[in-house]
Amino acid sequence: MSNLIDEDISTIQAKYEAQKIAFAPIMFQAARVLRDSGILNLVKKNRRKGITPEEVANDLGISIYGVKVLMEAGMAMDILRLEGGRYYITKCGFFILNDRMTQVNMDFVHDVCYRGMFNLEEAIQTGKPAGLRELGPWKTIYQGLSSLPEKVQKSWFDFDHYHSDYAFPDALPLVFKRNHKKLMDIGGNTGRWAFQCVEYSPEVAVAILDLPGQLDMAEKNIRENGLEKRISTIAIDILDQSRSFPEGYDAIWMSQFLDCFSEDEIVSILKRAYAAMDNSSVLYILETYWDRQSYEAARYCLIGTSLYFTCMANGNSKMYHSKDMLRCLREADLVVEEDIDGVGISHTLFACRKR
Amino acid sequence: MSNLIDEDISTIQAKYEAQKIAFAPIMFQAARVLRDSGILNLVKKNRRKGITPEEVANDLGISIYGVKVLMEAGMAMDILRLEGGRYYITKCGFFILNDRMTQVNMDFVHDVCYRGMFNLEEAIQTGKPAGLRELGPWKTIYQGLSSLPEKVQKSWFDFDHYHSDYAFPDALPLVFKRNHKKLMDIGGNTGRWAFQCVEYSPEVAVAILDLPGQLDMAEKNIRENGLEKRISTIAIDILDQSRSFPEGYDAIWMSQFLDCFSEDEIVSILKRAYAAMDNSSVLYILETYWDRQSYEAARYCLIGTSLYFTCMANGNSKMYHSKDMLRCLREADLVVEEDIDGVGISHTLFACRKR
Repeated sequence: MSNLIDEDISTIQAKYEAQKIAFAPIMFQAARVLRDSGILNLVKKNRRKGITPEEVANDLGISIYGVKVLMEAGMAMDILRLEGGRYYITKCGFFILNDRMTQVNMDFVHDVCYRGMFNLEEAIQTGKPAGLRELGPWKTIYQGLSSLPEKVQKSWFDFDHYHSDYAFPDALPLVFKRNHKKLMDIGGNTGRWAFQCVEYSPEVAVAILDLPGQLDMAEKNIRENGLEKRISTIAIDILDQSRSFPEGYDAIWMSQFLDCFSEDEIVSILKRAYAAMDNSSVLYILETYWDRQSYEAARYCLIGTSLYFTCMANGNSKMYHSKDMLRCLREADLVVEEDIDGVGISHTLFACRKR
Repeated sequence: MSNLIDEDISTIQAKYEAQKIAFAPIMFQAARVLRDSGILNLVKKNRRKGITPEEVANDLGISIYGVKVLMEAGMAMDILRLEGGRYYITKCGFFILNDRMTQVNMDFVHDVCYRGMFNLEEAIQTGKPAGLRELGPWKTIYQGLSSLPEKVQKSWFDFDHYHSDYAFPDALPLVFKRNHKKLMDIGGNTGRWAFQCVEYSPEVAVAILDLPGQLDMAEKNIRENGLEKRISTIAIDILDQSRSFPEGYDAIWMSQFLDCFSEDEIVSILKRAYAAMDNSSVLYILETYWDRQSYEAARYCLIGTSLYFTCMANGNSKMYHSKDMLRCLREADLVVEEDIDGVGISHTLFACRKR
């Protein structure tokens, strides 16, 4: 946490930082429109000689007034730099424009979270995702995923896949060095991990457990790829604590899954996993913990994502500190055999056995 | 503009700054709820020994889950600092909690702007305040001010008064050194400047020009203070360009008024002021220009406020660069006789005469 602004910060700087927070929603929208209107791209193209608001207005057919309020906001945010009447793009501006992670985060925050986050206070008080009603009448977002408006759904899945999939290539050899033959993917969603498993290991068969709605998409993918013999699906509501998990799998896989639950629910899930394991089974947990990050940017994103869970997803889950997860594992009598940070940069892989 | 992050910023830092923008609306709401839930105040009270999330949850009756997601967000934003499992308030946190300007800005952004800012792109494209429909069915916010929901109205007036009134004590001697007897306050709103004038100068009479709705509030104040003989009101829609201004005033006053109009409208207003002036009349313009600020925090607030005008107020006005205003004055054949920065810290006073 070396880069944190510490108490040596001047009072003037602290007051400035406070105003950045106070005006944050307005500046967020300005940054997004700078990106989506083409202004940021045009400034980038003219990065050597700079560009005036008048030239931008002429080129893009946006009013000079609109261009000015947006570009001045861009300057205030340091995504643009004003010098001798001409605007230039900054490094931060490049990330807003071209970095896939930043794009995915910004679209997710705007399309999925923005309106609902107005209700954060109510979500904290009630323990319910009080912002979700802005998207639809569901108890949690998981019931609504398959019926979200197209743009919102795209932003949700882009975010979800971006932040989990890039760890899979690193994780595959760490899992299959144990030569698993039968793997159960709990919360397997549309099957992205399962498909990579059967491609990586010719011997493994994978069962995906998830809500019926998600499995519709997974089953379609399985059929289209002719993989019915190697990938199967099991519909289950994980939150129904009376539902035990099927036995007979030598590996259980949970990727970015437990962060969708409260600590009590995590313990219940882990206890049911324990009951389904024998002494040679391995439980893999692939997660991002905010205390295990090398980059402050990653920690910031994870902690911001927690509030999405609070206000939009289900009201009671979050991106955890690794110690929280280790405590839950102990309560379920599981021991961590391997603890590997830096999987796909931000992820941590726990390989666990029955105590 | 000495404190701007320049191109020496590292790529890692630029990526972090981009994520702060990408998650800005979420973090804004977390900061606000940290303040309004009492958490920030409790952390401040325990600023010597720090406080754990568990202690906060017990003391305030908020779930430990809710406390954790909020305090972790507070740490990510650097309004809290985590050390040895205990949280401490930072200088920025003090501003979020106790600084009146920061409070007023944050309430204004949440209550007045937050929901509507979702529509910024439409506002830029159409030149209309596309976010205003979230508050009511008005063409501009000025028609709706007197019928806004109470909390929204309070946040609007708190913001408006905070950012203009503190300059009045500095401005009074600068105006009344000329011993004006008849002053016309164009856009005088609820009469706050007029009341200070008649108190400061025993000889002056003030006429307030504004929309009928605003004058209702002004007239009530006048009656309650028995000032009918010294303060009068004149109802006028300034945007009706066929309406000339009354003549016979030796001073015309416009405080934080012209920023509510487009440049074309400003020129029309200034030309009508010109027509109402004789060779000895003085036109005073008290404004905040973003290029005239000593503090980046002030510049940031002004530029953020521009986007409120774009999306919520009227779709075509902004906080101007001083050169924009000087150009409008030239077009109306007015010359700046005095140009005084630093009035009440952020304001600039122009005293103008006919050319």
